[in-house]
Amino acid sequence: MPQPLHLHPDRLFPAEPDTRSIARRLYAEVAGLPIVSPHGHTDPAWFATNAPWTNPAELLITPDHYVFRMLFSQGVPMEDLGVPRADGGPVETDPRAIWRRFAERYHLFRGTPSRMWHDWVYAEAFGLDVRLSAGTADHYYDVIDAALKTEAFRPRALFERYNIELIATTESPLDPLHHHAAIKASGWKGRVVTAFRPDPVLDPDFEGFHANLDELGRITGEDARTWDGYRAALRNRRAFFAAHGATSTDHGHPTAFTADLSDADILALFARVAAGPVSAAEAELFRGHMLTEMAAMSLDDGLVMQIHPGSFRNHNAAVFARFGRDKGADIPTQTDYVRALKPLLDRFGSEPGLTIILFTLDETAYSRELAPLAGHYPALKLGPPWWFHDSPEGMRRFREQATETAGFYNTVGFNDDTRAFLSIPARHDVARRMDCGHLARLVVEHRLEEDEAHDLARALTYDLVKAAYRL
Amino acid sequence: MPQPLHLHPDRLFPAEPDTRSIARRLYAEVAGLPIVSPHGHTDPAWFATNAPWTNPAELLITPDHYVFRMLFSQGVPMEDLGVPRADGGPVETDPRAIWRRFAERYHLFRGTPSRMWHDWVYAEAFGLDVRLSAGTADHYYDVIDAALKTEAFRPRALFERYNIELIATTESPLDPLHHHAAIKASGWKGRVVTAFRPDPVLDPDFEGFHANLDELGRITGEDARTWDGYRAALRNRRAFFAAHGATSTDHGHPTAFTADLSDADILALFARVAAGPVSAAEAELFRGHMLTEMAAMSLDDGLVMQIHPGSFRNHNAAVFARFGRDKGADIPTQTDYVRALKPLLDRFGSEPGLTIILFTLDETAYSRELAPLAGHYPALKLGPPWWFHDSPEGMRRFREQATETAGFYNTVGFNDDTRAFLSIPARHDVARRMDCGHLARLVVEHRLEEDEAHDLARALTYDLVKAAYRL
Amino acid sequence: MPQPLHLHPDRLFPAEPDTRSIARRLYAEVAGLPIVSPHGHTDPAWFATNAPWTNPAELLITPDHYVFRMLFSQGVPMEDLGVPRADGGPVETDPRAIWRRFAERYHLFRGTPSRMWHDWVYAEAFGLDVRLSAGTADHYYDVIDAALKTEAFRPRALFERYNIELIATTESPLDPLHHHAAIKASGWKGRVVTAFRPDPVLDPDFEGFHANLDELGRITGEDARTWDGYRAALRNRRAFFAAHGATSTDHGHPTAFTADLSDADILALFARVAAGPVSAAEAELFRGHMLTEMAAMSLDDGLVMQIHPGSFRNHNAAVFARFGRDKGADIPTQTDYVRALKPLLDRFGSEPGLTIILFTLDETAYSRELAPLAGHYPALKLGPPWWFHDSPEGMRRFREQATETAGFYNTVGFNDDTRAFLSIPARHDVARRMDCGHLARLVVEHRLEEDEAHDLARALTYDLVKAAYRL
Repeated sequence: MPQPLHLHPDRLFPAEPDTRSIARRLYAEVAGLPIVSPHGHTDPAWFATNAPWTNPAELLITPDHYVFRMLFSQGVPMEDLGVPRADGGPVETDPRAIWRRFAERYHLFRGTPSRMWHDWVYAEAFGLDVRLSAGTADHYYDVIDAALKTEAFRPRALFERYNIELIATTESPLDPLHHHAAIKASGWKGRVVTAFRPDPVLDPDFEGFHANLDELGRITGEDARTWDGYRAALRNRRAFFAAHGATSTDHGHPTAFTADLSDADILALFARVAAGPVSAAEAELFRGHMLTEMAAMSLDDGLVMQIHPGSFRNHNAAVFARFGRDKGADIPTQTDYVRALKPLLDRFGSEPGLTIILFTLDETAYSRELAPLAGHYPALKLGPPWWFHDSPEGMRRFREQATETAGFYNTVGFNDDTRAFLSIPARHDVARRMDCGHLARLVVEHRLEEDEAHDLARALTYDLVKAAYRL
Repeated sequence: MPQPLHLHPDRLFPAEPDTRSIARRLYAEVAGLPIVSPHGHTDPAWFATNAPWTNPAELLITPDHYVFRMLFSQGVPMEDLGVPRADGGPVETDPRAIWRRFAERYHLFRGTPSRMWHDWVYAEAFGLDVRLSAGTADHYYDVIDAALKTEAFRPRALFERYNIELIATTESPLDPLHHHAAIKASGWKGRVVTAFRPDPVLDPDFEGFHANLDELGRITGEDARTWDGYRAALRNRRAFFAAHGATSTDHGHPTAFTADLSDADILALFARVAAGPVSAAEAELFRGHMLTEMAAMSLDDGLVMQIHPGSFRNHNAAVFARFGRDKGADIPTQTDYVRALKPLLDRFGSEPGLTIILFTLDETAYSRELAPLAGHYPALKLGPPWWFHDSPEGMRRFREQATETAGFYNTVGFNDDTRAFLSIPARHDVARRMDCGHLARLVVEHRLEEDEAHDLARALTYDLVKAAYRL
Repeated sequence: MPQPLHLHPDRLFPAEPDTRSIARRLYAEVAGLPIVSPHGHTDPAWFATNAPWTNPAELLITPDHYVFRMLFSQGVPMEDLGVPRADGGPVETDPRAIWRRFAERYHLFRGTPSRMWHDWVYAEAFGLDVRLSAGTADHYYDVIDAALKTEAFRPRALFERYNIELIATTESPLDPLHHHAAIKASGWKGRVVTAFRPDPVLDPDFEGFHANLDELGRITGEDARTWDGYRAALRNRRAFFAAHGATSTDHGHPTAFTADLSDADILALFARVAAGPVSAAEAELFRGHMLTEMAAMSLDDGLVMQIHPGSFRNHNAAVFARFGRDKGADIPTQTDYVRALKPLLDRFGSEPGLTIILFTLDETAYSRELAPLAGHYPALKLGPPWWFHDSPEGMRRFREQATETAGFYNTVGFNDDTRAFLSIPARHDVARRMDCGHLARLVVEHRLEEDEAHDLARALTYDLVKAAYRL
């Protein structure tokens, strides 16, 4: 007899009955608000082509680094999960076999957000009512596989069923944005916008950086190997992205380091950067200066900046060599913001017309650095808990550690930050529940009145994200 | 209809009913204890002259960096709040206009300690019973303004009404302490003592350092540009401060770095420091050595040392240029204690006759460094949560992270650390409530017996502060 | 009238009634499971000789650095507690006087785990029913002293009464393991195994390092001053330890730094290390490379690696000079894992046949570094909260901060890590209760089903430790 699968209506709410009652009342008013997803990694091709997804494993296992990193940590080779090898060598191609390997090990995800997201997808999206396990693996596979063949599970149908008001994808400046154009041309009403992620042409350490510069020049008609041409090309692409709905840029640098070089210094540095390989220190200095340049351009064109620093990418050399980027081996590092951001903030931090949203993988920065910075600088706002911290406990720590200094109104609502499209409502639901639980605790401890908590629940769910991202 | 303003008697207590009952019982015994305020920044002129405060904005908004930093972060120019410009240029002078700007944005403070402190002042000090908002701004202004014109709101009357047993102010070594002398000479019974804050003459980076040295020499009759004269002058001023009631010194260095130089090395370093500008490294070395010198002097004269490290002062260059120091742009940084304090501790850490109270803006140090250090060294005690962490969640983290290693008895009670005189009881009340809530949780989880919790509630409120600060 | 001493059956469980009920149910199923203690510091001589302990102070006070560090921090000289001086000078020798000094100050331990461990020993091991205090000091002394003279309090009898399935001690590679051999030869059924702690011959900064090398060579018949002889000697001793039951090695380096030098580089470095004193940087490089060598040997012989980094040993120079090592003056420091472990992980991190258990004294690493690393690398597991963090709040933080990224199954159960034999059940009981409380919260918040929590409670108590340590 398999165990039942049941999403309890009180899940994630504090157990204490008075607190739970308040949380329920708060949640009741925000549960049905539309999803606004201003930062994520869904594939715009889905919405452009509206083609069906192929099978359960390819949709839910193989592309989800939360899933395969945990299985890999427990000894499952990534090849056995169908993760493609960089050299094109053989990997598992039977989706049912992949699904079974996952199902047999579903207990490994106990206590993780992946478990909550997946259960939501199984119960809410597919109507499954027994728990995933070795014994129910085939039943799951069959139900999900059949559903994916129906019209109701096409990307656009799910977008509408999920009540998504807007979703932002993330593209390289070199992307022609054909899918976004196709979506617009199709007449479909779903709002799918892009975001400008210039790392491939800002970071001298990015794979293919010089080729990227040349491509940037080609598509803009500028000489991107000169400082003036490079900046003109960036401005050109920012405008092109804005025309495709972008309201934000996104910067995934290894650190939060910024610089504000003199004209002579940046001219000299850019000449070296454009000409060939530079030292690690020069690369960091260039990235740091370019953040300040991006802030200058944002002041002009109104794009909101997002800074996502502090990930040591591709930590596992063997996995990187065999499988490439984004294979669950990105590890957070200690991240300084106070000294790192000062050059940028000295120049633009007091501009009320600029919005810079800061993220962190180093939670120690919440109370020590990020809340004090955002609680002072007009240009700064705090992004929601990111990546490993996009979880119930991570959200709780964020609110408890950031709010007393930054307040709620220097935060920007939730980001799902995901390519796992099916779980997007689950992720937003976790944030809504955790925020309502946090607010309920403030109310029950008489630190906030309930009418204020109702205002805040709506602000954290909807109003702040639309204001911060200028949507 | 404005919302009511109501300070709930159970505010800040945990919601779980058994825990709350215990917290109530503990709080009932400490709620009425006198306030002992061993570290703060009130103006001794208030108590010396007993002049009335001028108006609501000048009392409650313009000098409160917690208030104007939040408003500034949300786009309100500091000029509009009447914050004086360094160049004397025009700023808002209408206190009612300033008050209205604050009132309209009072929701920004939801979830912050400022909100709790202000509500206490409105309800308890002024008897207001509706919530502050745009709609009630003028009513508030009128009620507060009228009250400030009455005898009951003169500084000495409030001091007595607030049941303050003792308050310590903080002064530069160059301060003649006329106000403290005047208070004593007046025959008024309120105990207002000073504390010795020598940063202006210990820190080569302090504005006007060399002029300060010369002034130090002038008022003590020593040659403060020689090492022997400098130390004699410092001893002289410490004795002068002690004669005006000081029982403590206070050190606000950028880091916790200490040094213990040889006689030859400090003579050579002091010669450079006294002669002119020195490098950043030399300034740091000098500050570090002087902490050890201060500890040596404390062993002689019995003054308790307070070390408040880790603030990056005046982070916003534009705000510093326009408005000067202490304008809400001081940002905490990562702070090491283990290596930093070793030179001082190697010399004096095992002296039971010395008390050094450590503070931090880097909460990661609580469990990792500060509790282990204070749980070993006889000279060390832990100060209460400081500045951004003087908040309900900050206090909770401090007790949860420090107590298991340092115990309760290596802590020193509460500091309000404020110049916002009207809110002093509110601040002490938050600490009393949070400590009672923490103790109640230990009792309800059977980690402590209730009779012990009663002892501890009193110790944390009153006994430990008097013992640690030698009051 | 002394206060009663009572161990409440619900101690450490959350107060909220539904949560507490679940915790009780979970705990009921694991409370009676045998104790598996895979890492600790008990003396194998106790079990080899089965001699009675001498007196209450020598058993419970003088060797317990948790106890004497707190008393020392509050001004009690260590001499007064009978802690032996390095120079053999006089210290207190009257165990009753030592006991009274402790008893008079027992309130200092309120809120610390030492208090809980001691109360358990008093109530459960000795049947005392009044609280320890100045007034009950002599009663305690008499009851404990009398019990220690009985057969029931001999080491082997307690081992059996405590339901210990296995205990691991920790020895230097130079230890002849006579006590372990004697235990085996005695026919007694208690499983007491050793663990291989090679710091004395891996760390050039260890006291007597070169003499240790020579002794290592002597007992193995190798020339341990050559690189090949040194490694052969280490392999020899690892095999000898494994033959005495060891399933693990243990590494207490100052940092988590690792290196993977070329053959030429390590040959050159070893030549310098073996010949005489080396610089701090060379010592660190050698330690770092040797961790990678140890991992290579573990892949061959199957010993599980434990890495315990980040303690600044003997921080108090005066205490070290007067009393030697391990006198409560070891202080945690900030510890990086991400860059530090990369060389070792690049070589061996993806080996599913290798197990490396990571510990930390820097709790900030839980969510930022350790959980992401263990949630990816097959070779890595997370050790339980260590040393200062082996406490109720420390355990709670570990589960809350590590689980969402690493899951439960990349953790390894509990270590008591103690030489305080009498309190071993108390320590395991705290871990079982805190884990059940944590799981109960997940259940009551509908983040986990209760049947899963039952599985997990057993896994965290028993299954995972046996699997991870290969017992």
